[in-house]
Amino acid sequence: MRNTAMGTASKAGAAALEANRDLIESDRVEGTPVYRSNGDRIGHIERIMIEKVSGKATYAIMHFGGFLGMGEEAYPLPWSVLTYNPELGGYEVNVSDEQLKNAPSYEDNVDWTDRNYGKRVADYYGVPPYWL
Amino acid sequence: MRNTAMGTASKAGAAALEANRDLIESDRVEGTPVYRSNGDRIGHIERIMIEKVSGKATYAIMHFGGFLGMGEEAYPLPWSVLTYNPELGGYEVNVSDEQLKNAPSYEDNVDWTDRNYGKRVADYYGVPPYWL
Repeated sequence: MRNTAMGTASKAGAAALEANRDLIESDRVEGTPVYRSNGDRIGHIERIMIEKVSGKATYAIMHFGGFLGMGEEAYPLPWSVLTYNPELGGYEVNVSDEQLKNAPSYEDNVDWTDRNYGKRVADYYGVPPYWL
Repeated sequence: MRNTAMGTASKAGAAALEANRDLIESDRVEGTPVYRSNGDRIGHIERIMIEKVSGKATYAIMHFGGFLGMGEEAYPLPWSVLTYNPELGGYEVNVSDEQLKNAPSYEDNVDWTDRNYGKRVADYYGVPPYWL
């Protein structure tokens, strides 16, 4: 950044930077809205799966109530396919409709230590598994 | 790792590695026990503060019900002072009794975007602020 007097643009930049640093309580994650890049709300987060040791989010467990005819099932999305948008106050998910329609669902008794399940979800979205 | 046949020790190592990869649901964080290195249970986690963009844990908000005479107040601990111990099924906190007794408490309306508050907590425990 150039050393100029702080103008409107850089103030906005600073504000955006602050917003990027926003924190959320683990017990208030539920209900966080999820959007398309165009601003369409497509669902909400039910919970985040957190790696105990590193404290890193690995999956967002999502509900798409009615979007694309998806029912009340929950779906694990790799954290890396979510982008927080401070203006929308929620996450953008940039995957195709087709991908969402056939998304691997969140089974009730998922064994999260099962690398095959983790790999299947990651492969589905074309991202590396969270442990890599 | 050397290419030897898998023996008891490396099996144990693999199991520990798996345990290190354990995940926890954001809505099940509450109540996670916190220990001393000697195994004494000293309190529990009420919630984790998660950075929205990166999805990283920044603070554990802890209760020390009665430990060292600490009351029902909550205290923010920088995530970096917690170490997950798979054997105990909880986190170890390696700070001195003296540090805990005078720990900065969690004010009801903490402004998490206030760098001064974040810096004060980090400085208190002698760790870098989470944003560095």
